[in-house]
Amino acid sequence: MSVAPSSSLRLADVAIAVGGTVVGDGNAMVSGIASLDRAAAADLTFLASSKYAPLLAESAAGGVLVTPELAAVPGRCQNRIVVEKPHEAMLALLPRFYRMPARPFTGVHPSAIVDPTARLDADVCVEAFCVIGAGAVVGRGCWIGPHCVIGEGVSVGVDARLVSQVTLYPGAALGARVLLHAGVRVGSDGFGFVFRDGAHQKIPHVGRCVIGDDVEIGANSTIDRGSIDATEIGAGTKIDNLVHVGHNVRVGRLCLFAAGVGIAGSSRIEDGVMLAGQVGVAGHLTIGARAIITAQSGVLKSVPAGETWGGFPSRSQRETLRGYAAVNKLPDLMRRLEKLLARDPKE
Amino acid sequence: MSVAPSSSLRLADVAIAVGGTVVGDGNAMVSGIASLDRAAAADLTFLASSKYAPLLAESAAGGVLVTPELAAVPGRCQNRIVVEKPHEAMLALLPRFYRMPARPFTGVHPSAIVDPTARLDADVCVEAFCVIGAGAVVGRGCWIGPHCVIGEGVSVGVDARLVSQVTLYPGAALGARVLLHAGVRVGSDGFGFVFRDGAHQKIPHVGRCVIGDDVEIGANSTIDRGSIDATEIGAGTKIDNLVHVGHNVRVGRLCLFAAGVGIAGSSRIEDGVMLAGQVGVAGHLTIGARAIITAQSGVLKSVPAGETWGGFPSRSQRETLRGYAAVNKLPDLMRRLEKLLARDPKE
Amino acid sequence: MSVAPSSSLRLADVAIAVGGTVVGDGNAMVSGIASLDRAAAADLTFLASSKYAPLLAESAAGGVLVTPELAAVPGRCQNRIVVEKPHEAMLALLPRFYRMPARPFTGVHPSAIVDPTARLDADVCVEAFCVIGAGAVVGRGCWIGPHCVIGEGVSVGVDARLVSQVTLYPGAALGARVLLHAGVRVGSDGFGFVFRDGAHQKIPHVGRCVIGDDVEIGANSTIDRGSIDATEIGAGTKIDNLVHVGHNVRVGRLCLFAAGVGIAGSSRIEDGVMLAGQVGVAGHLTIGARAIITAQSGVLKSVPAGETWGGFPSRSQRETLRGYAAVNKLPDLMRRLEKLLARDPKE
Repeated sequence: MSVAPSSSLRLADVAIAVGGTVVGDGNAMVSGIASLDRAAAADLTFLASSKYAPLLAESAAGGVLVTPELAAVPGRCQNRIVVEKPHEAMLALLPRFYRMPARPFTGVHPSAIVDPTARLDADVCVEAFCVIGAGAVVGRGCWIGPHCVIGEGVSVGVDARLVSQVTLYPGAALGARVLLHAGVRVGSDGFGFVFRDGAHQKIPHVGRCVIGDDVEIGANSTIDRGSIDATEIGAGTKIDNLVHVGHNVRVGRLCLFAAGVGIAGSSRIEDGVMLAGQVGVAGHLTIGARAIITAQSGVLKSVPAGETWGGFPSRSQRETLRGYAAVNKLPDLMRRLEKLLARDPKE
Repeated sequence: MSVAPSSSLRLADVAIAVGGTVVGDGNAMVSGIASLDRAAAADLTFLASSKYAPLLAESAAGGVLVTPELAAVPGRCQNRIVVEKPHEAMLALLPRFYRMPARPFTGVHPSAIVDPTARLDADVCVEAFCVIGAGAVVGRGCWIGPHCVIGEGVSVGVDARLVSQVTLYPGAALGARVLLHAGVRVGSDGFGFVFRDGAHQKIPHVGRCVIGDDVEIGANSTIDRGSIDATEIGAGTKIDNLVHVGHNVRVGRLCLFAAGVGIAGSSRIEDGVMLAGQVGVAGHLTIGARAIITAQSGVLKSVPAGETWGGFPSRSQRETLRGYAAVNKLPDLMRRLEKLLARDPKE
Repeated sequence: MSVAPSSSLRLADVAIAVGGTVVGDGNAMVSGIASLDRAAAADLTFLASSKYAPLLAESAAGGVLVTPELAAVPGRCQNRIVVEKPHEAMLALLPRFYRMPARPFTGVHPSAIVDPTARLDADVCVEAFCVIGAGAVVGRGCWIGPHCVIGEGVSVGVDARLVSQVTLYPGAALGARVLLHAGVRVGSDGFGFVFRDGAHQKIPHVGRCVIGDDVEIGANSTIDRGSIDATEIGAGTKIDNLVHVGHNVRVGRLCLFAAGVGIAGSSRIEDGVMLAGQVGVAGHLTIGARAIITAQSGVLKSVPAGETWGGFPSRSQRETLRGYAAVNKLPDLMRRLEKLLARDPKE
């Protein structure tokens, strides 16, 4: 159930590639990788934990990567490659079986519209119907997929990839090796108004939106520009789909934001923070380095570095879990308490 | 307040079309359908429940579909069509009054860019600025709206419709009669990384994204591809706007997901499940067939088939409602309890 | 960290522009605006609250707008402009330093595809690769950015701006000065089905989607069309990114919806309502005028005008806060209560 594989390998050659040992038929051929329950005879699979050993019994795979401890687990598939870390071996093998995404050509597609003052490295791929504005800079090795709009004065670092239909508003700046999925918007106006003369007057947004090296942003996520300062996403941070980062937010390095997260304006997210799915962070807060916020939590005050917080309003995960447990026990306790109070002569 | 209607009908003809009986002037003409409080003299309206009878009193409609029980409800509009199921009759009449969306032409717009190895049925409509990659297959009757990007090796089943600006990543597979609204992304990379050598290393995503027959997906929703297996959406499932489905998720048939739902990786949603608005489902869970999850809930453990769950962390709706009720009564109870404890000599 | 400024000014001229008084060197030049902690020697900054006075001590700014009360606050920067409202002065100065977004040309880009029956004012800018359908009307002063799709019969009022990759489904109607950010979808089908013959049958959506004057809608937000009536967004309402408004919803004037908000079908949001981030509103409710709903709340019943509600299920913010406080105290109280009950002979 994966994309068409591009090559077949003998199990013996797979074993050499991952530094493992073949048990069974080293001449068996495999041409793809699949999970235990989906694998067919032409697939290699892997077993890294005894928890999934029952799935191996019925697996139709043509070969299986196993740890030394699990090498003798019973199963239909007798062709095994014994290796210390089967999951890492599987990841390392993926490029042997599947063609990784690659630029379809070098150059600028004739349908793309590039302002004459834009500076594109000779080694770029700009696909169909892209629009690149005045003064924009696109670095060596970049891959700009179809239908992207790169605004005036934007800079895109080396080896960056915009998958398709991405918008970079004027003034956005992307580092090296940034990967933006389809429909990402970088540098949209922040949500800022002052109420005057009976209307919400728009605050002009002249700040930038700066995306560091090695950042990945998921499909249809939106990162607003700053009002006067920049919104910043630090190097190595990875952001999932449908995430919103508000104006003036400063995100550190190596953070992970799962899908549906929203961060209100001017908050600071320090290095290595993990925000689970659908978390909301209010404005003007600081989430300390390496803090973890659990799924769907709403953070209304700053979180110290290294702590795990959750719930709404968020507090330490330990307190939050105690609160949930107490609420669960509450109805029964209340009934007992009502009885007790009913007998209390002072009530 | 609806789109321009395309034709007028006599009430007598409307009655024939829906198998009803005219009371009043069968020669009165109507040319559109509107709700009781919005209808004007040229509109047909409907009354299916006594709850809305007061709105009929003032309705300016030119005709009204009513049940036999409500046929004599007082109201300005005396032209009535008596029919067993007015709401169903109204739905059946819509195509008589309004032109339904239809392909503007057959063929491929000259501005579209179609790889010579793509195979398009002769009976397709591919609108302006589409980009269709190598080896893609587009079936008979398909309507690919403007600005869609169909990646390498994608297959699109018969009579599918992509409204506009849709992205299908390479390897995505769509069934028959699939309807994808503007900005849908199918097959974007899942959110998977391993931390090694001081960075979040990307796990390559080579799995597919398979969308079954008769699936509808709302505007700007995102369905990630699998890591090695496929992400699957079962036949007849309907998904609202701004929904996220993570990598390796397997969704069954005939599910309904309301707007803002997020499903984390590798969860399995069985047939007929209903997820209300903004629900989040954690990874690696199973939501049993026909289960219902109420709005904004966060599901952290698997849900048995047929049950209704809610809250955070989600549990059976009955327990959740008891919990809410208890929390509501809690402050008063606490005050009484504090008094009791204050008098307790052992405290 | 803002976009390249377009001009430099003497502090003395800045003071004249905002009606303030220079203290220090009126000949010092500034060419941009920045926050206290980010400002460099060529930047003007501002201090409006004593809370941020410590940041002025170290600020490297070349000039600072200050209130009379804060004029003597110590700091490296001795060049000050004393003015009653520094924040408003700063906003008023932005267009002096930065070029505001402006149409790059007047006319229709040769790559755009405009149906011959569409009526465009002579004074419009339609950028590259736009597609404008039959009978559409685009008013004087409009700026339609690249890759927008304007469906059949759509009307766009004067001075509206669609940033890029916006979709207006057929029949949508936009007022004057509407601003739609990248990826906004207006008029997508509502989520309506009836289950019959073993399938979710689609309810045709023939209603319109009407956006009032001066509305702004953030990136990747979606506003569904009505089923038979219109979905309406009232004049002067401002909507942030990734917001969903369901079919038949009627939103009043001057509302503010923060990012991630979702409103289910047929609800009515009266004038001046504020919905904070990630709020969900169930269907068929009324949120009364000027009500405020706090972040991440889930509204399951109608809210009276002027009230502040929060939590899930939402109730008045006062009750909600009491509930949170009670839950926080609950674990300790429970322990004491358990002890009391343990000694109760009737238990």
